[in-house]
Amino acid sequence: MTFNQDSIDQAIAVLKQQFGDRLSVAQTVREQHGHTTTRMPNQPPDAVIFAKSAEEISSIMQTCHKLGCPVIAFGAGSSLEGHVNAPYGGISIDMNQLDQVLAVNNEDLDVVVQPGITREALNDYLRDSGLFFPIDPGANASIGGMAATGASGTNAVRYGTMRDNILGMQVVMADGRIVRVGGRARKSSAGYDLTRLFIGSEGTLGIITELTLRLHGIPEVIAGGICSFPTIHAACDAVIMTVQMGIPMARIELLDPLQVRACNTYSKLDLPEEPLLLVEFHGSAVSVDDDVKRFAEICAELTSSDFQWSNEPEQRSKLWKARHDAYWAALALIPGAKAYATDVCVPISNLASCVEETIKDIKENGLTAPIVGHVGDGNFHVLPLAMPDDDAMNDKVSAFAKRLTTRALAFGGTCTGEHGIGQGKRDSLVEEMGDAVDLMAGIKARFDPAGILNPGKVFH
Amino acid sequence: MTFNQDSIDQAIAVLKQQFGDRLSVAQTVREQHGHTTTRMPNQPPDAVIFAKSAEEISSIMQTCHKLGCPVIAFGAGSSLEGHVNAPYGGISIDMNQLDQVLAVNNEDLDVVVQPGITREALNDYLRDSGLFFPIDPGANASIGGMAATGASGTNAVRYGTMRDNILGMQVVMADGRIVRVGGRARKSSAGYDLTRLFIGSEGTLGIITELTLRLHGIPEVIAGGICSFPTIHAACDAVIMTVQMGIPMARIELLDPLQVRACNTYSKLDLPEEPLLLVEFHGSAVSVDDDVKRFAEICAELTSSDFQWSNEPEQRSKLWKARHDAYWAALALIPGAKAYATDVCVPISNLASCVEETIKDIKENGLTAPIVGHVGDGNFHVLPLAMPDDDAMNDKVSAFAKRLTTRALAFGGTCTGEHGIGQGKRDSLVEEMGDAVDLMAGIKARFDPAGILNPGKVFH
Repeated sequence: MTFNQDSIDQAIAVLKQQFGDRLSVAQTVREQHGHTTTRMPNQPPDAVIFAKSAEEISSIMQTCHKLGCPVIAFGAGSSLEGHVNAPYGGISIDMNQLDQVLAVNNEDLDVVVQPGITREALNDYLRDSGLFFPIDPGANASIGGMAATGASGTNAVRYGTMRDNILGMQVVMADGRIVRVGGRARKSSAGYDLTRLFIGSEGTLGIITELTLRLHGIPEVIAGGICSFPTIHAACDAVIMTVQMGIPMARIELLDPLQVRACNTYSKLDLPEEPLLLVEFHGSAVSVDDDVKRFAEICAELTSSDFQWSNEPEQRSKLWKARHDAYWAALALIPGAKAYATDVCVPISNLASCVEETIKDIKENGLTAPIVGHVGDGNFHVLPLAMPDDDAMNDKVSAFAKRLTTRALAFGGTCTGEHGIGQGKRDSLVEEMGDAVDLMAGIKARFDPAGILNPGKVFH
Repeated sequence: MTFNQDSIDQAIAVLKQQFGDRLSVAQTVREQHGHTTTRMPNQPPDAVIFAKSAEEISSIMQTCHKLGCPVIAFGAGSSLEGHVNAPYGGISIDMNQLDQVLAVNNEDLDVVVQPGITREALNDYLRDSGLFFPIDPGANASIGGMAATGASGTNAVRYGTMRDNILGMQVVMADGRIVRVGGRARKSSAGYDLTRLFIGSEGTLGIITELTLRLHGIPEVIAGGICSFPTIHAACDAVIMTVQMGIPMARIELLDPLQVRACNTYSKLDLPEEPLLLVEFHGSAVSVDDDVKRFAEICAELTSSDFQWSNEPEQRSKLWKARHDAYWAALALIPGAKAYATDVCVPISNLASCVEETIKDIKENGLTAPIVGHVGDGNFHVLPLAMPDDDAMNDKVSAFAKRLTTRALAFGGTCTGEHGIGQGKRDSLVEEMGDAVDLMAGIKARFDPAGILNPGKVFH
């Protein structure tokens, strides 16, 4: 892939006329948009435009399409696989001013939003309606970015992922056309499912400028609880039994012993340094009580530790403190270290074996790498740490991450459950999907023949 | 679109060598495959091949791709919009011998099947496992056909549609390539969502030769109940309140007064000839009991009729008899008449108005057209009847069906919730999706440049 720097400069000159101060070429602004929470080196765009409407984005795309200038949509910048880096320069469109809630339809449990709104801002807005948007990837990501990466997080086991919670979208195509896909009906068999195609396309097929989201009623009662298990296998067996008995978990998280130790130190807790499950149940008072009882019976079969739980918000929060602080606790294991955040997802029957082999790999290679899993889906995160200047350790971490994805594939899983491909997992995508990657590339070539939409992501 | 008859004949001659008796050009066999439960006239293919493997289908596609011969995948033939008719002739591939269950993964709640297995055969196979595949479109459709049309049915409100219950597929492309999409992990962010793209593509992008499906645990307790309401609005309000309170319905169906009258006559029942809701709850004994109680409270607010329910299979079946016999009861309204089965789906807040306007339209135009709705999703079916030789009435019915889809779109809905586009709703697709249809056609052109896969469906 090559782009002509003169053409990029020309596009910027044309757009400068239109956007004035809202187009910036300042070094700091460019660097803010060329780097995120990813481990990748900073690759700044040539310019950043702070857009305010789909029509403006359409106009940017028309210019960039004509001149062959890369365009990258930028939301909260919380992606982990280098999705918003600009390896070929070009223009980053900052979407943060498209942050409005356009309509709340209480009876239909849906909401129409612009892509720049963050999930926390959306839920603040919705608070009085009794409704909420459940997808929670951890970071306070933008809704548009969450759609583009197919995000999910802790409560996907109950509420699904972004794929399950977007009814329709407005998208600006590479040539500037503004297109609507999906709609507001709960289900539809009207033609190809373009909505799901744009979700997870990482800004390579179009720029999302409006989304209709499914909402859910804030549950009457939320119960949270924790339980320690003697082995990873016992903890995973508890998850499998819970799924098989149809107990509707809202969240079920696993911390490995190293992560528990990190949390004990960081959050001043006193948990046994054993695999820990954290669960949450949502529902009516009666149904949550029933869920808790049935889950406690499962725990009693598999561990001698007690299942501690509460449906009081404060007490519940205390029990879940280890999980809430897990990321910072992990980083504190090596002060000053950087984390290489990576995730895989495997069929749940293989989860225990995959996690145990990964822990063995971590120990054998002298890594410091705690594990946190959204285990109801078979999805887990590993956070290997290294000092930024420790080249040898950083190489070891990269080699480990590669082994991890290969291991997940061998266990019938996927190279990423929720972080996406970005720049970091392009080889893994080919390793996993084989010829299907050609089909994806075919769609990309059709929708964006000049290859200007987020080049260097998903595909090599 | 044009195809050369000589080329079609040549493809059949080549394939006859390979398939021998398993390629049939007999008139009766061709007619069986050129017509289904649809109202469309019979359009037989030139030949039918009874295939046994993905490799055989790959070989058929290679020949047909080279020579330019249309290919249509045929499952149970239960589609309603002319999906398996052969308007351009060519070859129908009968998939019924690809009917094996390849693997059941109990701990992962998934199953790998061939596309020709029907949903009833699959559930019979699974019975002893304690698991089931929930999607129930009414007909005993093939799983491959259900995937291709994006089917759903009565319990989509709880378990989702085919889109939500397929993890991965093997697909034979137009040129014969065999490709795998998706996988066995519960979730993935690895590249574009090709699985969802093939689901609902109606055999126009590839031929599905294997599917990995999500399964669900057979609920410990199933409760079924019915309640009459004074108006459609009151019945729909009950649905909205149930959704808003987060009561997990497994099914919630609406019969309009005409359908109730038809059921009273046909099934010898004595229901008030008023809008009727039928509900089903799945879960533990405790949670189902709670669901029933809360739903009964909602009914008490909106109707003076009692909510009658039971969790005894026999009694439950009796209560639901009206729904089980609804299709035959509707047909019996005019002995000898044919039904023009059509469906639309609207946001639930508009459901009552859309159904009431539709009933008004039916009355004003002197039609006999009972209504049954999967109202938890806002999806409803209308079944206008006409004697086959009554041209005037058949014209009236066609005009009505057109008004119905336009009305659903005006209410923010979709022209089909679950029947698909096929031949019958190609104009409606354009009316609904506008420019997005060009994007769909672009994908079609890329995946099947010769246009041999199910020509004349989805697109004009």
